[in-house]
Amino acid sequence: MGVLNRYEAGVCYYPEHWKETLWEDDLRRMLANGIKTVRVAEFAWSIFERTEGAYDFSFFARFLDLCARVGMKVILGTPSATPPAWLTEKYPETRNADASGHLYAHGGRRHYNYNSPIYRQKTGQLVQKMAEAYGHHPAVVGWQIDNELNCETADFLSEADTLAFRSFLKKNYGTLDALNEAWGTVFWSQTYTAWEKIFVPRQNAVSAHNPSLMLDYVRFVSESAISFCAMQAQIIRACAAPGQFITTNGMFGHLDNVRMSRDVLDVYMYDSYPDFWYGVDQTWKKEELHDRNASLALTRVRSICRHFGIMEQQSGGNGWYNRMEAPMPRPGQLELWAMQSVAHGADYISFFRWRTSPVGTEIYWHGILDYDNHDNRRLREVRKFTEHLEKIQEICGADTDARFAVLTNPDNLFDAEVDHWHARVENASQQGIFEAAQALHVTYDLLDIRDDTSVETLCAYPLVIVPHFVITTHEMAECLKAYAQQGGTVVIGCRTGYKDRHGTCPMRPMPGDFREMTGTAVDEYSFASPAEKEATGKWGDEEIPAACFMESLKAEEGTEILARYTTGYLKGEPLLTLRQNGKGKVLHFGSTFSKSAAMCLLRRAGLAEPYAGDVQVPESMEAVGRVKNGKRYLFILNYLPESQQFEAKRPVYDLLGQETLEGTVTVPGYGVCVLRI
Amino acid sequence: MGVLNRYEAGVCYYPEHWKETLWEDDLRRMLANGIKTVRVAEFAWSIFERTEGAYDFSFFARFLDLCARVGMKVILGTPSATPPAWLTEKYPETRNADASGHLYAHGGRRHYNYNSPIYRQKTGQLVQKMAEAYGHHPAVVGWQIDNELNCETADFLSEADTLAFRSFLKKNYGTLDALNEAWGTVFWSQTYTAWEKIFVPRQNAVSAHNPSLMLDYVRFVSESAISFCAMQAQIIRACAAPGQFITTNGMFGHLDNVRMSRDVLDVYMYDSYPDFWYGVDQTWKKEELHDRNASLALTRVRSICRHFGIMEQQSGGNGWYNRMEAPMPRPGQLELWAMQSVAHGADYISFFRWRTSPVGTEIYWHGILDYDNHDNRRLREVRKFTEHLEKIQEICGADTDARFAVLTNPDNLFDAEVDHWHARVENASQQGIFEAAQALHVTYDLLDIRDDTSVETLCAYPLVIVPHFVITTHEMAECLKAYAQQGGTVVIGCRTGYKDRHGTCPMRPMPGDFREMTGTAVDEYSFASPAEKEATGKWGDEEIPAACFMESLKAEEGTEILARYTTGYLKGEPLLTLRQNGKGKVLHFGSTFSKSAAMCLLRRAGLAEPYAGDVQVPESMEAVGRVKNGKRYLFILNYLPESQQFEAKRPVYDLLGQETLEGTVTVPGYGVCVLRI
Amino acid sequence: MGVLNRYEAGVCYYPEHWKETLWEDDLRRMLANGIKTVRVAEFAWSIFERTEGAYDFSFFARFLDLCARVGMKVILGTPSATPPAWLTEKYPETRNADASGHLYAHGGRRHYNYNSPIYRQKTGQLVQKMAEAYGHHPAVVGWQIDNELNCETADFLSEADTLAFRSFLKKNYGTLDALNEAWGTVFWSQTYTAWEKIFVPRQNAVSAHNPSLMLDYVRFVSESAISFCAMQAQIIRACAAPGQFITTNGMFGHLDNVRMSRDVLDVYMYDSYPDFWYGVDQTWKKEELHDRNASLALTRVRSICRHFGIMEQQSGGNGWYNRMEAPMPRPGQLELWAMQSVAHGADYISFFRWRTSPVGTEIYWHGILDYDNHDNRRLREVRKFTEHLEKIQEICGADTDARFAVLTNPDNLFDAEVDHWHARVENASQQGIFEAAQALHVTYDLLDIRDDTSVETLCAYPLVIVPHFVITTHEMAECLKAYAQQGGTVVIGCRTGYKDRHGTCPMRPMPGDFREMTGTAVDEYSFASPAEKEATGKWGDEEIPAACFMESLKAEEGTEILARYTTGYLKGEPLLTLRQNGKGKVLHFGSTFSKSAAMCLLRRAGLAEPYAGDVQVPESMEAVGRVKNGKRYLFILNYLPESQQFEAKRPVYDLLGQETLEGTVTVPGYGVCVLRI
Repeated sequence: MGVLNRYEAGVCYYPEHWKETLWEDDLRRMLANGIKTVRVAEFAWSIFERTEGAYDFSFFARFLDLCARVGMKVILGTPSATPPAWLTEKYPETRNADASGHLYAHGGRRHYNYNSPIYRQKTGQLVQKMAEAYGHHPAVVGWQIDNELNCETADFLSEADTLAFRSFLKKNYGTLDALNEAWGTVFWSQTYTAWEKIFVPRQNAVSAHNPSLMLDYVRFVSESAISFCAMQAQIIRACAAPGQFITTNGMFGHLDNVRMSRDVLDVYMYDSYPDFWYGVDQTWKKEELHDRNASLALTRVRSICRHFGIMEQQSGGNGWYNRMEAPMPRPGQLELWAMQSVAHGADYISFFRWRTSPVGTEIYWHGILDYDNHDNRRLREVRKFTEHLEKIQEICGADTDARFAVLTNPDNLFDAEVDHWHARVENASQQGIFEAAQALHVTYDLLDIRDDTSVETLCAYPLVIVPHFVITTHEMAECLKAYAQQGGTVVIGCRTGYKDRHGTCPMRPMPGDFREMTGTAVDEYSFASPAEKEATGKWGDEEIPAACFMESLKAEEGTEILARYTTGYLKGEPLLTLRQNGKGKVLHFGSTFSKSAAMCLLRRAGLAEPYAGDVQVPESMEAVGRVKNGKRYLFILNYLPESQQFEAKRPVYDLLGQETLEGTVTVPGYGVCVLRI
Repeated sequence: MGVLNRYEAGVCYYPEHWKETLWEDDLRRMLANGIKTVRVAEFAWSIFERTEGAYDFSFFARFLDLCARVGMKVILGTPSATPPAWLTEKYPETRNADASGHLYAHGGRRHYNYNSPIYRQKTGQLVQKMAEAYGHHPAVVGWQIDNELNCETADFLSEADTLAFRSFLKKNYGTLDALNEAWGTVFWSQTYTAWEKIFVPRQNAVSAHNPSLMLDYVRFVSESAISFCAMQAQIIRACAAPGQFITTNGMFGHLDNVRMSRDVLDVYMYDSYPDFWYGVDQTWKKEELHDRNASLALTRVRSICRHFGIMEQQSGGNGWYNRMEAPMPRPGQLELWAMQSVAHGADYISFFRWRTSPVGTEIYWHGILDYDNHDNRRLREVRKFTEHLEKIQEICGADTDARFAVLTNPDNLFDAEVDHWHARVENASQQGIFEAAQALHVTYDLLDIRDDTSVETLCAYPLVIVPHFVITTHEMAECLKAYAQQGGTVVIGCRTGYKDRHGTCPMRPMPGDFREMTGTAVDEYSFASPAEKEATGKWGDEEIPAACFMESLKAEEGTEILARYTTGYLKGEPLLTLRQNGKGKVLHFGSTFSKSAAMCLLRRAGLAEPYAGDVQVPESMEAVGRVKNGKRYLFILNYLPESQQFEAKRPVYDLLGQETLEGTVTVPGYGVCVLRI
Repeated sequence: MGVLNRYEAGVCYYPEHWKETLWEDDLRRMLANGIKTVRVAEFAWSIFERTEGAYDFSFFARFLDLCARVGMKVILGTPSATPPAWLTEKYPETRNADASGHLYAHGGRRHYNYNSPIYRQKTGQLVQKMAEAYGHHPAVVGWQIDNELNCETADFLSEADTLAFRSFLKKNYGTLDALNEAWGTVFWSQTYTAWEKIFVPRQNAVSAHNPSLMLDYVRFVSESAISFCAMQAQIIRACAAPGQFITTNGMFGHLDNVRMSRDVLDVYMYDSYPDFWYGVDQTWKKEELHDRNASLALTRVRSICRHFGIMEQQSGGNGWYNRMEAPMPRPGQLELWAMQSVAHGADYISFFRWRTSPVGTEIYWHGILDYDNHDNRRLREVRKFTEHLEKIQEICGADTDARFAVLTNPDNLFDAEVDHWHARVENASQQGIFEAAQALHVTYDLLDIRDDTSVETLCAYPLVIVPHFVITTHEMAECLKAYAQQGGTVVIGCRTGYKDRHGTCPMRPMPGDFREMTGTAVDEYSFASPAEKEATGKWGDEEIPAACFMESLKAEEGTEILARYTTGYLKGEPLLTLRQNGKGKVLHFGSTFSKSAAMCLLRRAGLAEPYAGDVQVPESMEAVGRVKNGKRYLFILNYLPESQQFEAKRPVYDLLGQETLEGTVTVPGYGVCVLRI
């Protein structure tokens, strides 16, 4: 995790939920089962400051002393996600509000807003006191700021947010005229003639706002969260002992996690609950990838932080008392899901939570142990996992053996959170590319690109896909062009480049800034109609589907037409083009990257089945490659309850079984195999 | 109905909806059709007190005088469900509010709250005046308090409710420390440091609250409703002539109907609209029991009041002007549904309503007569029903011929209203047991059990099922143990005993307080996964499904394993155990009682088809047994439009046809047969 | 369009969205493509009055001057649909509110209410200034008032609305006693004792109100919208040059468009987006009529204004940034949909919009041109359409060749907006009759009838269907009777006549006022049950379905029973009756007019396939007849992507191809044929 150099397992623990007499037994059982770190205190504001200003740090001091004594490391959470009742009742302005301005009541969590000065002050004071109290304690190794920023809701609509939004806009635009111009407020007479007329998006008669306002609002929420996080980080860094790392956990919307991770944190942590894709409701369908989809989320986590941690790794069935009724992980699944995280780059795996909460909203968000505290199957699986972790220590810190990259960009991510036309194509392609890569056992990266991204960053990959950068910039275009010039292959999808960074649509042909590179202009475009069959094109001998969206491309001189539509209303029109750019090439695909389209692309790029010489793995298992010091490692994961087989075509070393394998190898149901190849 | 000793039919009537000149004709037609009682005035506040303090009781005095003259008995409703506009506009604090604190406007009904002092005062004054005005009138036989307490919404979220909630909690917990401890407010820093920080559950950022708060809140709503009802009952008892009974109607959530019935009422009445299970929307499916499901509701009514009344028995198609578009009862269905009520223990059947309302929200909540007042088919069916009632008078006051009991308990009912994990298993088993009993023609009771329930109460049944008492107490355990010791059979289902009465989960093995009795401990537990086939076990030769939820049981010494899982991830683990307790036995079933599982259980207990020696009834008809003075009676009900047949294996007496039957007997579509066997 | 005597094409244009330097190019391209009129300024309040009172009319003056110079005609919109932020923030009372009283914020459109005095004043002042500034400009030919009255929401719930509602009621009822009587407020103690207790329908505990209040509320909203529109029209008429017409656009609920059109407007315009029936979401199903359903909407438009305009004719795929992701019209569809409007009576077709908006909520509500402004396929199709329009000029001003009429009435329309029982039968029959007429190629009219409608109006049709006039009046009955007396055929459906104009249900047999005419009384009635198969009757040899609702009719002497139920619970009862009335006859059908029932009726009335002697058209194409100066014209429209054929049985003249056709004629996919026959 940047600050760790060994794989390690941890657990989330709530000393305040249990009798103090139980602590030592708990800690010793954790250690006995391979758990060496606990995350504590992230919801414990009332323990530290039961009433306003009545600070008391003795409770966790006793706990930390015990940890130091038994040899347990501690990550301390700052409890700003759960302000006590005394705070939010006395200072209602600290609360978040819904779209009609109604303040959220105390009684859940995350009912505060980032911009209330009094909330920042109260939080800052507590964090300062915590850092002073514990910042040099020998048990403390790191800090988690807040808990799951932007979870529950990523919309902040309080008065404090409106005031801060205005400041944010003043800073960005300087004048109202500039703002009116940038946002196109001339539409529907929305021109602002005073800053005081601008609000965060409140309920109006149409349940929609100016999309440019919405885009800036999302940027503003992100800025608010980051600055709230930075405020705390700054205090901790000033007071705590050097070497204690700072992190936060979770990956939620309206937040530029990449920037937060880079500017504020030492390491980024994710909370991995594959159950969200597995069986939690009745819409589960047999034909989808289910929990295997968590690998796409982990790929995105890696785009934020190459070597990350899992602060909360699912260890039981999830649920709140009033929603979600999820099954327990089946035998093997707990380790399978933990290994999925490791395979995708997690160097620290902290389970949520040691023992299921006996009280509160999350009595069904199961931990390792059940209420009755008996040694159960899940604890045995945790121990097995921690033992396995030791056997694969040589992989810790390895890089992903990524064979291509899918580019991602905060402006485009934010725009897709606002714009359903954007979201529909983006989601279709992210899912399609992921499924294609899973089917062909290609590990890939999501790669964050900004105006200041260097061409070298891209050069690590022979191929980059830019699915649907609706918003393009000259800088990104230059970077991609340079990458192609040096021999890279760029593939862009439909909908590229019709917006500027304000989310408005300049008068220019698509793909906008990327046009020079592609040598194309979009002539027609349309969503697929539910009244029609999916359109297709022909790429060489292969049929390539044009799913979800269709563009017909005009090819300029020097641009080759690789595929034309063969069905659909654009029949005969160009669907896929190629333009040589120096040593490399740029492809323009006028549709979304469905699984079939992406498989076609990866096969033609020679990227499919990169380990085929070593092992032959069926599509129904995931294979994730990592590389370190010239050695390659392969995690093979079986998400099915039945055992499955792969073929070792030459001797490969099984790190968990500590033996060399060749020929047919059986992976048990929900089992994992880690190979050095 | 406790206070009645003959079957009798009544009707709901609204003198205020019609020209006074029509009254006598209406009353005489009712009498001519066998209707001897009318319920009136329950929405007539504006008639009694048109403006504040301007009491006028002449209108209903005229009506009562007419009733006395023609020989019609009257049940008077207190109109507290519909405060007039002048009241709730002048005293907004009397109104109920939604979760964001917005007060409900006048213009519907039930827009008041139980705890506003001014509302209690205004209601009390009016009830006092009514009791004085009519309490000795010869036509009056009883009183209905309010109308359908907790209908429309069972959530009360006004300021008055918050104040009363705090008092309720102070009384129950004494100190905030005790409350904080009981509720586990340490979770998410919800610790209260002043009573003034506690509110009824308002909208927060997570749409969830501490479940212990929620459980106490439901208890509080129940207490509020009961004390509001008791306040009125006390006034009536003080002023009205002795012999006039007091009741209320409907069965809604957040209400301990058993306690209300016992402490406040002379008799409990239900409003039976089988249409709610029959055809009111497009989700109707052929394979379900539909209107036959109303028998389950009636079984629950019987658990509240062994001999109850139906204050509103459906007589036409239901609907409001802006929702529900229901068909009319088909020929026979009106009587079928009324007889369903009688079969299940109703001694008084009052139809809703005499004539369909020509005005207001319920113009489509059809009565017996249509707007045009012509003698219609439904009136003819009412007359037939009242004639039939006379033919079965000997059954009035009979007890249900119940062959087993399913235990029910207010804390567990309330917890299931709050907790979806609890509700899912509880609902599955209630439906499964009901369907099994219907299929096997076993009549059974829902039996309310509390800490003070005597073992004798249970001893009336050879078998009691305790489906899912998530909350157990030592007292209930002792009672059940004693029952078993004396020869009874107890069957408990999964999820038993993991909560205490605060809804929190103590550190002890399941089934908690019942463990000594079962000699088991739950090892693993999980919801069934939608990704898996339903698990099964083997009980002797029979396959027994483990639907919805699965527990593996550890059997202590002396506990026999009756069935193990044969499929599913718990394959090989114990699913069903038996422990001898004195003369009786206790079974622990680690799943829910699906129809198949319950059928298996009933058959093995020798309880299936208790009347098989007398009559052989197909599964597609309901058979309900009643017993009185050593005689047994059987209601056979045909819910299908087609005629069906049963086999009388020996001569049985048909009370409606007044003849002895033997051999094949045909019951017409939607027909009923009442046998003395 | 009443004021136009030639077919003409226009377009919606937003000069304020583009650089002024682009204007002339845009206008000249429009003219080059056959577009001769632009509609402008309807959202431009901020352009005219950027801050309060700072009027500035120079911007559009420059635009108008340019238009005059290049020869473009202009329709000016008044911008009252989009009050600027300065207005609604300074005067919050001008805003509309939701049911809980929360004011809608600025940031969308239509966030104002019609009844705020200050809003009327501000609007009036601006309109006055606009009329003075532009009312004599040579380019201006007409005015559009506001934009889409009652779009977004037709509910107005602000304080100003409550005050105006009370005035409206005082005017209509005089006394509270009269209102209480009319509304039946005795129901649920809703009796009003002060006008101040009456409110527009606010959120209450039951989400329902007195339906009579609701009916008057809908009338009130209609009155409010009309008087707001009239206020503007009056100002314009006083100031602008004679000859400039006044219109408004769109057709929305809670609005008596017929009266508004008659009393306030010179011509009525509709916004036709067939995409709403074509492919905009995933619920699209192959077996429905889809975009062909827009013809039903256009038939209703014709009931408002016999020769109307289309102010917004769809030219691209629709969508807002946060909802609706619609495909582009496929090749031919743009013209198909425009011709559909022309076929149904539009004499003016104005496309929405010239170029897709680069900014704001509607960046995806595509215009003719895309953001990039290149000459695209859609522009080519517009040019083809305008060329075709010239070829069919002889048809302009023709009447519909309607062969029967379906009567419609504002009280019944409003009641169906309030009453779901009413809406269900009404919608079923409107759709059924439409589908039958489409299948049999019969063009028909929806005919608005009121108490003052003359019998001559009806005499234009041999047959009138009165599907479900729940509310009848003596006057309407007299008119229908007289029509029948003179030889007409009246067919009434189920549910007729059980309400009076207050929406309450008088004590009289159905069909109420129409009873004398039908010689029937309804005995039983019921919705069809989802548990039953659809009931049928027998009319001669034909089976006629009784779908959705069933009535059994009692026939009086002199009334013939044409059909009885042959299945269903009313088997054997009369379903359809006939009573001779003078020279004509009145049929009473006790059900809804499903497609099959309506086809049966039309065939028996000899109205099916009126052009069968000329052309034989398959059911899968629409044929719309128009008639002018004794000549008949037939529009044949192909809504499928595949070409289809019809048979010319004798020589017919094809106006678009300018040739005479006979025998098999092929209409291309999405193609149109316009014949003189």
